[in-house]
Amino acid sequence: MGDLPVNVKCLFEGEEEIGSPNFPAFLERHRKLLQADVAVVSDMAILGPNQPAITYGLRGALSLELEVRGPKRDLHSGTFGGVIHNPLQALGEMVAKLHDRNGRIAIPGFYEQVRSWPTSERRTMARNGPTDSKILRNAGSNLPWGERGYTLYERATIRPSLAVTGIGGGYQGAGPKSVIPARAVAKLNFRLAPDQDPAEIEHLFRSHVATITPPTVRCRIRQQLAAQPALVDRNHPAMQAAAVAYERGFGTKPLYLRSGGTIPVVNMLQEKLGIPTVLMGFGLPDDNIHGPNERFHLPTFFKGIKTSIYFPDAVGKRLRPKSASGRRSQREKMYDY
Amino acid sequence: MGDLPVNVKCLFEGEEEIGSPNFPAFLERHRKLLQADVAVVSDMAILGPNQPAITYGLRGALSLELEVRGPKRDLHSGTFGGVIHNPLQALGEMVAKLHDRNGRIAIPGFYEQVRSWPTSERRTMARNGPTDSKILRNAGSNLPWGERGYTLYERATIRPSLAVTGIGGGYQGAGPKSVIPARAVAKLNFRLAPDQDPAEIEHLFRSHVATITPPTVRCRIRQQLAAQPALVDRNHPAMQAAAVAYERGFGTKPLYLRSGGTIPVVNMLQEKLGIPTVLMGFGLPDDNIHGPNERFHLPTFFKGIKTSIYFPDAVGKRLRPKSASGRRSQREKMYDY
Repeated sequence: MGDLPVNVKCLFEGEEEIGSPNFPAFLERHRKLLQADVAVVSDMAILGPNQPAITYGLRGALSLELEVRGPKRDLHSGTFGGVIHNPLQALGEMVAKLHDRNGRIAIPGFYEQVRSWPTSERRTMARNGPTDSKILRNAGSNLPWGERGYTLYERATIRPSLAVTGIGGGYQGAGPKSVIPARAVAKLNFRLAPDQDPAEIEHLFRSHVATITPPTVRCRIRQQLAAQPALVDRNHPAMQAAAVAYERGFGTKPLYLRSGGTIPVVNMLQEKLGIPTVLMGFGLPDDNIHGPNERFHLPTFFKGIKTSIYFPDAVGKRLRPKSASGRRSQREKMYDY
Repeated sequence: MGDLPVNVKCLFEGEEEIGSPNFPAFLERHRKLLQADVAVVSDMAILGPNQPAITYGLRGALSLELEVRGPKRDLHSGTFGGVIHNPLQALGEMVAKLHDRNGRIAIPGFYEQVRSWPTSERRTMARNGPTDSKILRNAGSNLPWGERGYTLYERATIRPSLAVTGIGGGYQGAGPKSVIPARAVAKLNFRLAPDQDPAEIEHLFRSHVATITPPTVRCRIRQQLAAQPALVDRNHPAMQAAAVAYERGFGTKPLYLRSGGTIPVVNMLQEKLGIPTVLMGFGLPDDNIHGPNERFHLPTFFKGIKTSIYFPDAVGKRLRPKSASGRRSQREKMYDY
C-alpha cells in the first residue's frame, strides 16, 4: 500500500442529460478548489470488449421544441376537415423542409461554420473508426441514411445532424378519433460539429422556421439544451497516460476515436478552467444507451476498474507542472488541431 | 291522450364512433323486425339556436393508421444522428406528400369518383349554408385553408378531406431526450364525398404510400373505420314532415343542409333495408363535438323535445304505404339526385 501518485478531486455532476445548466456557474464559483492538470470522465464508449478506445472529439448539442398552433381548440375532423389547416399536417410539412434530398440539413447557412478536415485526418478516422457495416450492425439496421460524400462514421462525428426525437399531437390511443388538434409539438435534437455554435444555429433555425411556417398556423420555439462541441489534444501527456492504462487493463492498445455524442462539461472545463478532459470510457456500442434494456457489460466493467487503477500511476509519471497549452482556449485549440 | 299516429320502433346503436362494424350483420339478421317507412336519427347539428336545419348529405369516412418502422430499437440521437433515417422524420416527409400546394389531396386518382354538382345545387348550398366567416367563427379561427375554388361550406361537405388526427413517436415528456425512435405512427381520417368508396380510397392510399415510402423505412397500414357517404332525398314525405315539425318546434322554417360528418348507419339502413333516414338533429355548430368541454345547449334541447313530439303527427299524415322509391339503392339515388 502506498500513497496515490497524484492528487484526486471528485466532482459529481447530476445534470448531464439536461445540458449541465448550472455547471458553468459552479465552475466560476469554485475556480480555485477545482484547479487540476486534467479531468477524467468515463461517460463514453470503446469499440468492443477487446478493443479499447480513447475519444478525442465530441459533437455539440442543441435541443429545441417546435410547437405549431392552429385553431383555438380541438375541432371535429368531419365538420372542419378540409377547411382548417391541421397543425399536425403543418408540422409534418415543416419537418419535411428540414432536410434536402441528399440528407443534408436544409437550413440556410447551417454548414457555414462546419470545419473541413484534411485528408490525413479523414484517413486516420477511416483506419481507426468503425466501418459502415459495423455501425449499421450496432444500430440494428441494414439501411444507411444521411449526407452523401461521407462515411457513416464521419456523418456521426465530424458532420452535424438533426434528429426529430419526438412528435406529439392529436389522439394516440387505440382505434380512431375524429379530431383536428389545436396544437402539435416536435422535439428536435441537433448534434453540432466543430466549429458550430449552438446559439448561432438556434438563430438560423428560428429564421428558417419563420420562412417555412405557413400563414395558416403559428409557431413557437423553446430551447431545452445547448452544449458546445469539444476536442481534446491527442498528444496531451494525460492522453498518452490513458493509452498506457488501457493497454494494461485490456491487453490491447487503444484506438483514438471521435464520438457523435455530447458531454457538455468537457467544453466547459476547457473554456472556464483550461482543463483538458480524458474521456476514459468503458461502454460498448450496443449497450442501448438511452434506450430500453440499456446495459453495462460486466467483463468490460472489470477491465474498466483495472484501467482506472493503472491511470493515476501512468499520469503521475507523465504530467509535468501545468503547461501553458492547458490553458489555451478550446476554440483556439479547435482551430489548430 | 291518444294513440301514436305511427308505429315506432327504437333501435339503440352503441358503435357509431367506431364505424358501426356490427350493424350491417344485425340489420341482415332482423330484416323483418326492422321494416319501417323511415328512420329518424338526431345525431346532427342545426345552424343556430333560432335556425333549425335538416341535413340531407353526409360524408363517408375512412380512418387508417400509418406506421413507419426504422431501426429495430430506439437509438441514441448523438451516436446515430445523421446515419439512420429517423422514422419520425420519414413520417413527416410522407405526411407532407399527402396534400399538394393547393390544399388538394395528392393521392393519384383520389378525386376520380367525386361527384360534380350542378351550379343550381351549389347556389342552393350558398343560399342555405353557413358563410366562410361563420364557419371560421365556429372553428375559433380566422385562417381558412383547403382546396381552392370552393367555399368553406363546400370544402367541408361536397369535397373530400384528409386530416392527420394524431401522430405519436419518440419522447413527448418535458425537456429533451436524445432518441431516434424505432417507430412512429400517424392516424389519418379521410372524409369522403359522394360517390367515393372507402375500399377504393384505401386501395389508392396504399398504392400512394408504397410510392412515397423511402427505401430506408418500412410502412404498415391498418384500417380502423370505413363508412360510405349518404344522401337523403329532400322531397321524401318524411323530410317534409320533419320541416313541419321543426317549424312548430322552433317557430322558424328549417333550411336544408349538408354535413361534413359521417353517420355510418344512414347508408346501411338505406342499402340493406331501403329505409331513408331523416336527420333531425339539435346540436349547435359550436358544441365542441368530440372536443374538450363538449356541451348541449339547454334551450335548444327543449325545442328539440317539442320538435320530436310534432314529428310523428306530421309524418303520420304524410306517409303513404311504402313506395318503390324507398327501396331504391343508395348508390342509384346518389346518381340521380
